[in-house]
Amino acid sequence: MPKRQLKLGFILHGVGPGWDDWRHPDALVDASTNFGFYKRQAQTAERGKLDYLFVADSVSINARSSPHYLNRFEPLTILSAVAAVTEHIGLVGTATVSYTEPFNLARQFASLDHISGGRAGWNVVTSWLEGSAANYGKEEHLAHDVRYRLAEEYLDVVKGLWDSWEDDALVRDKATGQFLDPDKLHELNHKGEFLKVKGPLNISRGPQGQPVIFQAGSSEDGRNFAARHAEAIFTHQDDLAQAQAFYADVKARARGFGRDPDKLAIVPGARPVIGSTEAEAETKYAELAGLGNLENALRALGRSFNDHNFSVYDPDGPFPREVAAEGFKSNQSASERILALADQGLTLGEIARRVGTPRGGWVGTPEQIADRMQQWLDERGSDGFNLFESLPGQLDVFVDQVVPILQDRGIFRREYPGATFRETLGLDKPVNRYTAQRLARSAA
Amino acid sequence: MPKRQLKLGFILHGVGPGWDDWRHPDALVDASTNFGFYKRQAQTAERGKLDYLFVADSVSINARSSPHYLNRFEPLTILSAVAAVTEHIGLVGTATVSYTEPFNLARQFASLDHISGGRAGWNVVTSWLEGSAANYGKEEHLAHDVRYRLAEEYLDVVKGLWDSWEDDALVRDKATGQFLDPDKLHELNHKGEFLKVKGPLNISRGPQGQPVIFQAGSSEDGRNFAARHAEAIFTHQDDLAQAQAFYADVKARARGFGRDPDKLAIVPGARPVIGSTEAEAETKYAELAGLGNLENALRALGRSFNDHNFSVYDPDGPFPREVAAEGFKSNQSASERILALADQGLTLGEIARRVGTPRGGWVGTPEQIADRMQQWLDERGSDGFNLFESLPGQLDVFVDQVVPILQDRGIFRREYPGATFRETLGLDKPVNRYTAQRLARSAA
Repeated sequence: MPKRQLKLGFILHGVGPGWDDWRHPDALVDASTNFGFYKRQAQTAERGKLDYLFVADSVSINARSSPHYLNRFEPLTILSAVAAVTEHIGLVGTATVSYTEPFNLARQFASLDHISGGRAGWNVVTSWLEGSAANYGKEEHLAHDVRYRLAEEYLDVVKGLWDSWEDDALVRDKATGQFLDPDKLHELNHKGEFLKVKGPLNISRGPQGQPVIFQAGSSEDGRNFAARHAEAIFTHQDDLAQAQAFYADVKARARGFGRDPDKLAIVPGARPVIGSTEAEAETKYAELAGLGNLENALRALGRSFNDHNFSVYDPDGPFPREVAAEGFKSNQSASERILALADQGLTLGEIARRVGTPRGGWVGTPEQIADRMQQWLDERGSDGFNLFESLPGQLDVFVDQVVPILQDRGIFRREYPGATFRETLGLDKPVNRYTAQRLARSAA
Repeated sequence: MPKRQLKLGFILHGVGPGWDDWRHPDALVDASTNFGFYKRQAQTAERGKLDYLFVADSVSINARSSPHYLNRFEPLTILSAVAAVTEHIGLVGTATVSYTEPFNLARQFASLDHISGGRAGWNVVTSWLEGSAANYGKEEHLAHDVRYRLAEEYLDVVKGLWDSWEDDALVRDKATGQFLDPDKLHELNHKGEFLKVKGPLNISRGPQGQPVIFQAGSSEDGRNFAARHAEAIFTHQDDLAQAQAFYADVKARARGFGRDPDKLAIVPGARPVIGSTEAEAETKYAELAGLGNLENALRALGRSFNDHNFSVYDPDGPFPREVAAEGFKSNQSASERILALADQGLTLGEIARRVGTPRGGWVGTPEQIADRMQQWLDERGSDGFNLFESLPGQLDVFVDQVVPILQDRGIFRREYPGATFRETLGLDKPVNRYTAQRLARSAA
């Protein structure tokens, strides 16, 4: 039996995931809106046969926002551009159900799927920053549970629009002049709690049938949503034990919803800092940590608590637990991880620095990074990883030095297995709902 | 003094502008969702030094829709992909103010402007198909005049979001650690009749400051909107006299609004059918006209009258004037042009065929096409043209055989003059509104 294969994604994040990463001597300060930079990273990741590229998102900033949130490409447009200069790698874009018309979203992802020859993926988010509502003329940000109820309905509508064309609806017979088989084009006529959408979509079903569904929330609601609907879940896990608990929980939920748990990939974030020796890796980590300052680390921490201002507290004192409620309103899983550090007795400043420049066991030699990945895979901590580039050049190091080790161990492919992202991930093409009904009727 | 230069755009329209164009022996039946086809056309247009590529749009289809509306790429995604494989040509996408969140639209066009190095243009439309509302959970399509009032406010908001970053807001000084100058990032705080948007936008000002504004309506409201706000207007004009009247009217309105009329390019659509001799061109036109059938021509006609079903009338009888009101509700200028043909005594069938396969004087040799373009330019019928490809291969013919004649006559450039689409069109980069206020204050 072939070994279980790692799923590896790379996060295109411009100036870097940390507040002060742009200050590194080799960093391009305009990376977040530099298409040449995105193109190079995308092509490097594809050279390493990685499964997918991932673009995160948010829809609200202010002058206190971290550089990599402040100014960056919009996901659908940058992934469409990247599609034109890559051939095999999956293209996963984050988009919110709270502030985008489902017809427009379904259409843009279907368009990306056609442009890329079947490589689109949608990371479904519910927008956890409270400031977002005001950019969309809304009075209030929806409560956490209501957002997930909306997400369920929204995803159902989007999938319905993707299915509004059966795969063979376009006849396109020059001899007879028939372009469309009208029986295979369907109105959705959805009327639900939040949405009313008629359809059909004005673009045919893409090569994948439906783009791959990602999810990135780890709260109770987020886990259930992922277990029910997602084909991959992007999560933060600080150590193997925690990761195993999360993995077991989500896979059990998926089974509970009648799904094959192998069709839901769990991919925690990882930010490897790789050196040719342990000492060199530690030097690089110190270089990275040295870029940050406490003020920015405190601001970054505030983001998980509804932009709370942590600079008013003593950084050497305890974490101010009274702000917990703000965290549960906005990003529940991130705030829980932070409160767990407070439980361990870390000071506010220590927590801010730890969250700002995570180590997470990902500092080491190529062998050590490969060992850790294999351990998490073998011991069911994850099905793979969503990789951040910690320092300029580290993606190249990963591709050139870690990927070959994983390949030699038989836990990572040497070639892309097929044309579409679904084939890369080992996922089936979803059967069109109307085609399924037609088949059921003719069998009856 | 250098001669006035033609502005030439090319419309990327997949299977072709006519209902049955896809039946041509050389036509790719999947052209509308074939990225390779779009890439070839885009690169051919760029080889011809054309000013821009143009992508039309609509947001509602049904089983009776024409093949080129039915199934096609979404404009922002396909233009982003095209941006990655071109270097100089402008990229104009159609997007509706009726059914897109202004924050998302401003952001995607700004992202396209960054991706393309300053080549984005937005064709502002108000969505004239009544079926659209139902795809967005709206009960009713807005009335014509209300849509234009919304368009004014919407454009103002989008420009405000594009200006929410001053050009030099990003300091990005590695030595001091200052990434942003917070005084140069601005909230918009717009509260108007239709929209409430806080801002700032989460992407910095693009290389053009603001993407180029196109407009495509020719009604009274549309003309005023264009004269006030647009930098190019895409229109349909059947003959030179009609074109001159339109040209004079719109330029006078622009002058009336205090604008320099030379900063508003008028580009009627043209669908050249080019042959090496007149006889060959006529043969090609006959080939094109022969692809269509009356039933589809009548359906196509219906599109300008709120999807009216014209097949119930005698095609050899007069045009049923009682449907005029439906036309005024949806696409006012198109229905007026059709009623004008009825005034000339054409039968319903003749009108449908004329509208379905327009000649418009654009059937001829490369010399004749160049002559006509020069005449319209010299006699102020237009500032250039928005070109449709009439038959497969005609874009290549235009680029290889007509463009060199225009260049030899000194009315079309041999090279792109600068980096951005604004430079190509001879338009200034708009001064940021906050920078202007700052300059005014410091001068006072």
